[in-house]
Amino acid sequence: MIGRMGELDLLSHVFKHNAALPGRVIIPPGDDMAMLRLGDRDLLITVDQVADGVHVNCADTPLELVGRKAITRNLSDVAAMAALPVGAVVAAALPRDLGDANATRLFDAMRATAERYDCPLVGGDTMIWDGPLTLTVTVFAEPRGVTPVTRSGAKPGDVVCVTGRLGGAWRDGGADAPHLTFEPRIALARDLAQRLTLHSMIDLSDGLATDLRHVCERSHVDAEIDIATMPTRRGGDTDDTDSHGLTAEQRHALCDGEDYELCFTLDARDAASLPAKIDGVPITRIGRIVARAPGHDVACLRLVRPDGASNAFDASGWEHA
Amino acid sequence: MIGRMGELDLLSHVFKHNAALPGRVIIPPGDDMAMLRLGDRDLLITVDQVADGVHVNCADTPLELVGRKAITRNLSDVAAMAALPVGAVVAAALPRDLGDANATRLFDAMRATAERYDCPLVGGDTMIWDGPLTLTVTVFAEPRGVTPVTRSGAKPGDVVCVTGRLGGAWRDGGADAPHLTFEPRIALARDLAQRLTLHSMIDLSDGLATDLRHVCERSHVDAEIDIATMPTRRGGDTDDTDSHGLTAEQRHALCDGEDYELCFTLDARDAASLPAKIDGVPITRIGRIVARAPGHDVACLRLVRPDGASNAFDASGWEHA
Repeated sequence: MIGRMGELDLLSHVFKHNAALPGRVIIPPGDDMAMLRLGDRDLLITVDQVADGVHVNCADTPLELVGRKAITRNLSDVAAMAALPVGAVVAAALPRDLGDANATRLFDAMRATAERYDCPLVGGDTMIWDGPLTLTVTVFAEPRGVTPVTRSGAKPGDVVCVTGRLGGAWRDGGADAPHLTFEPRIALARDLAQRLTLHSMIDLSDGLATDLRHVCERSHVDAEIDIATMPTRRGGDTDDTDSHGLTAEQRHALCDGEDYELCFTLDARDAASLPAKIDGVPITRIGRIVARAPGHDVACLRLVRPDGASNAFDASGWEHA
Repeated sequence: MIGRMGELDLLSHVFKHNAALPGRVIIPPGDDMAMLRLGDRDLLITVDQVADGVHVNCADTPLELVGRKAITRNLSDVAAMAALPVGAVVAAALPRDLGDANATRLFDAMRATAERYDCPLVGGDTMIWDGPLTLTVTVFAEPRGVTPVTRSGAKPGDVVCVTGRLGGAWRDGGADAPHLTFEPRIALARDLAQRLTLHSMIDLSDGLATDLRHVCERSHVDAEIDIATMPTRRGGDTDDTDSHGLTAEQRHALCDGEDYELCFTLDARDAASLPAKIDGVPITRIGRIVARAPGHDVACLRLVRPDGASNAFDASGWEHA
């Protein structure tokens, strides 16, 4: 079963065996976007899929939002690098019974969303098949004067911050669920990266616990999260806690996927000058980066309770399928 | 049914409604690759899908060849622009029961093929699902000193040429079928474009009749094919002809898809200096470009028999699904 190996392991295997990558690969595979240097220009690239039954349920989601998500999911990766999009291509696998009108609605939504972010759709490939609707979008971006922020620069002593509110992006259901309507944080990321020195950044697609662990793995550090500080999406019905000392809302904030908010780290002095909000979006300090525990190969995420007690958190975030 | 509308119609609809594309889109959607101008560098982009049951049958095809085809299909588009590849990303939808070892074989084949053409895999997205195996590859390329050859520059009087042999790319079946083992004509295309002024070029994926008609549509011209000159893949069993005067082998050469050879046009003087072969690959003159018939909006492809009789050929080439 591939589920056992997992996406990251599979891609890691592949990329580990990449023969010496040509000098033009400046940010290698494994970040939110890869970066190629072409002459004196840097080009960032990301690809993501949106499949019916995996990332959306077409039966109860307007096609306009399905098309929107196919684009915005990639734009969230652009935000995570503090880059600006320049263009996109889409490959669509369309069910035989979708119909022309619906196919047109879907493509119009992708085009309009892409245009809104100045990321024109410049190419595509479609096929009609008996499988589920799948949209694969590749987006190109450029640094445009802002050094891209990777996953690999977190340093012990860094403050860990997140944008927005976390958890339950799927729970509200219906057409206004956050996983469908989220705003890619491109402008906010550019603003932050221009004001301050961000050491690392990632977008929250697999869940805070999993994504922050990705940062720790690539930066060879550990992290601590002050669980009471996490900006949960809404208050829980009860204050009951589980064996990790987490309320239901805190567990959702840690483990649910598809928030498409940003998690970034920066040194404490820079963090002191962070505003509480940027353009109405909360910026919250939720923890800190610490040195990797001696003798440990694997990143450790510790949850710290208000009374100072802490424990390692092994549960992974949410992964598709 | 989308089958009625067709891929080209759907994409045409979308791209027609692209708001004024930013000035950075130099070759707009609808060619083998789009081209963006980023500063003083031009970037070409293409995306293609390979799906089990549509473009390959995994049940009787080694995964190494499935992975190879996912990359080479895109590299054939790079060849059609006379460009050089610089990198690729892949999105994979993997069946739940594929297994780690098979997933690794597949990715290793994609990586090795990409490396062979100096087109490193720099990113990926994988999902595990209940649908069929699907590989979506996006390739980036650069002109590197050769002006990209589009579909839109064919001129009346041009000679129409093709590389290699056409038809039956699927018929031989098994692991040595041409649609699995074809060689993307990158070096040959660069060689041609550096020696001669190519007016238009396309790679033959949907079948000669359909693909040459794409060139005619975008160039606002018509074309004539001398049917006896087409380089068919093998002699037919009989010389029986159909109502168009075509033998079975000629019909396959015109209508089968997935040859992944090149069809290009150039003026007669340049054509006179074409060698019969380049690096062992036959270069064959098969017809000419003529002015669009007055009052006609749609391109016309005429088949010319050895006795000079001709008729318009309406049957489309082969389209997936």
